[in-house]
Amino acid sequence: MSAEIINVGDELLSGETVNTNAAYLAEKIQELGIELHYQTSVADDSIRLQKTLKRALTRSSIIIITGGLGPTKDDITKNVVADVLGKNLVSDETTLSKIHAKLKDLASTIIKNNDKVALYPEGAELLENPIGTAPGIIISEKEKKIILLPGVPIELKAIMEKSVIPYLMRYREKNFMIRHQILKVWGLPEAQVGEILEDIMGENKNPLVGLRVDSGEGVKICITARGGAPTIVQKLIEDMENIIKQKLGDYIYATGDASMEKVVGMLLTLNKKTIAVAESVTGGLIAKKITDVSGSSRYFLSSIVSYSNESKIRDLKIPEELIKEYGAVSEQVAKAMALAIKNISSADIGLSATGIAGPSGGTMNKSLGLVFIGLATGIGFQVEKHQFSGTREIIRAKTAQTALDMVRRHLIS
Amino acid sequence: MSAEIINVGDELLSGETVNTNAAYLAEKIQELGIELHYQTSVADDSIRLQKTLKRALTRSSIIIITGGLGPTKDDITKNVVADVLGKNLVSDETTLSKIHAKLKDLASTIIKNNDKVALYPEGAELLENPIGTAPGIIISEKEKKIILLPGVPIELKAIMEKSVIPYLMRYREKNFMIRHQILKVWGLPEAQVGEILEDIMGENKNPLVGLRVDSGEGVKICITARGGAPTIVQKLIEDMENIIKQKLGDYIYATGDASMEKVVGMLLTLNKKTIAVAESVTGGLIAKKITDVSGSSRYFLSSIVSYSNESKIRDLKIPEELIKEYGAVSEQVAKAMALAIKNISSADIGLSATGIAGPSGGTMNKSLGLVFIGLATGIGFQVEKHQFSGTREIIRAKTAQTALDMVRRHLIS
Repeated sequence: MSAEIINVGDELLSGETVNTNAAYLAEKIQELGIELHYQTSVADDSIRLQKTLKRALTRSSIIIITGGLGPTKDDITKNVVADVLGKNLVSDETTLSKIHAKLKDLASTIIKNNDKVALYPEGAELLENPIGTAPGIIISEKEKKIILLPGVPIELKAIMEKSVIPYLMRYREKNFMIRHQILKVWGLPEAQVGEILEDIMGENKNPLVGLRVDSGEGVKICITARGGAPTIVQKLIEDMENIIKQKLGDYIYATGDASMEKVVGMLLTLNKKTIAVAESVTGGLIAKKITDVSGSSRYFLSSIVSYSNESKIRDLKIPEELIKEYGAVSEQVAKAMALAIKNISSADIGLSATGIAGPSGGTMNKSLGLVFIGLATGIGFQVEKHQFSGTREIIRAKTAQTALDMVRRHLIS
Repeated sequence: MSAEIINVGDELLSGETVNTNAAYLAEKIQELGIELHYQTSVADDSIRLQKTLKRALTRSSIIIITGGLGPTKDDITKNVVADVLGKNLVSDETTLSKIHAKLKDLASTIIKNNDKVALYPEGAELLENPIGTAPGIIISEKEKKIILLPGVPIELKAIMEKSVIPYLMRYREKNFMIRHQILKVWGLPEAQVGEILEDIMGENKNPLVGLRVDSGEGVKICITARGGAPTIVQKLIEDMENIIKQKLGDYIYATGDASMEKVVGMLLTLNKKTIAVAESVTGGLIAKKITDVSGSSRYFLSSIVSYSNESKIRDLKIPEELIKEYGAVSEQVAKAMALAIKNISSADIGLSATGIAGPSGGTMNKSLGLVFIGLATGIGFQVEKHQFSGTREIIRAKTAQTALDMVRRHLIS
């Protein structure tokens, strides 16, 4: 039993889009213990897709095709698949009424092109798309499974998790599985994490420990374990997780899918604390991250994005002289901002960030990437000075993550 | 003359690595005016790579293979290529001494393995790797060019830019090139854009018009023109751009790389206007997007993220009765928020957003995705009511984009 991925779309062959769908699907297929041998990207071109699909049918038993299920002329996947398999396209009433209802909700006219979305190869099984209109499709053909998914990543993931993974669970090899766990580290560079974990890393180990770096999320430690039974694999993962946690302590801020803002949100909820933010350099990003978490209204009160000096003086009551004497990017102003937002909002924790994200704005004394982060709590305040590197986007992302990490460290201390 | 990419590596078929090399190479190949028809990822498996390469040789004149040039056992690319082409592997003295100099402190067994890095198919041209040890390799074989590059992205890019692009410049068809243009649409669903553009879309046209959807950025219309000279291709693009602009008018908010926030920033600068934001549902995202643009301090004054009712009352002076009577998610509160932030900040434009991003919080009268956006300007105010669908993240992204679009429409009207 082997699988193969075909990604359809001009954008993949023009370099416009990085193919994250392939990596996501590959990971899920691996987790199921199904071997994946090939992944091919092909343009919105009927003849080339036809050739690619025919070849895949000669060598793979599960073929996942992404993209080209939409309403427009360049969406060719269903026609090609129906052609190759010698099937007719028929219309699904449920999808059709969903499309019509959705367009009505959007106060738009019903458009005949959209009816194309409801077409599927006769005899196929339709998979509900909880986000968009184009359903996933599974076609069973002489021991082969051909699975069609929309190219929009969030829709593809939703259909994979809800329908395709449970479907494939029934077809995979029973006695082999792979599991992953991720530990996220903030505040240590990759090389240092690598040095600390040196004796447990290396090829061909089980579990395997690898490192990846993400400028906004930090160093991700990926543990991969292989084995014949869930309990064995789980034990391999857990033992290694404990070893790594002992080595890195509270530099590990999250495990699995959890984000820094989710961890901070849980800690705030647990400690029954509220937070408010005064942001300059991050321009709303800290508040945005905090409120990315559903239910954050329980602990997040407000943020004042005082991007201009006038706003710092007016909205946060920072003394004008303080800004004049030390500059808006200074330890003193960061401290005053954190204390001010805590007082104004009556939050338990006041968090602030001021800095220079660039690309311009650096001076002789204060260079690009200089950031001050302030934290005011019931027991006092602290200010951290950081010199970040990278683009404007990266400096802002690192600032927001470091600010939230200060809150996390405060709450676990 | 057409190209094809083969990416070699287990990590691409386990989902561990997102294939950014493919997107990078695709972009560079397109920019050279060379058509790219296929991209295939294959595991570190000699037989499968052999088959993939043989097939590529039947259909493409330029084949770029990435990965598998390193010192370890699973680095198989050079052996497979030499095998398929019937060539011997020989050792390059320059690379060999570079490796030995680099590894002089390590054990001799490690050095012996590394000698493999200096091997190359006889008669091939070596391309200097300014970062790592494995050189790139170009093999010319009966009108075909086979180009081998290391899989490490930074090394691959360095060799591409220093050697491969200049090399391909000499071999591409002199009288053929491809150019792209992107037009971005907000406020119309994909199907409706597809219907409006139906008569200019379709396979095998020149220029080719394709559509893609991004929940945060809207519908992207991609024009691809092919031709023999820059002026001709440019004219094809421009004529099509004009036709589409006539059909879609100011639904097109940006061209090329420009984002909504960049366009709004340019319009604010041009009109010498300032803006301030009062956000509830977007939780800082509108301010974050505005300040993503470098130089936004010229026109962006402040944002108050009044996530709680208390903050709306205290920081924005929204009358408590208004919230009690109509609810925080209402036309009345959106209007009051926009007017309040305009007054408080003395900005020319006050922008507000209040709504229900979910996943919980919907009621019988006010369902998930209900959003009110307020705009207060020198000439009055307006409130738009929207019913968005999607996840929390998508609803927030759509709200921010729609709010900025209201500012754009106001500034161009």
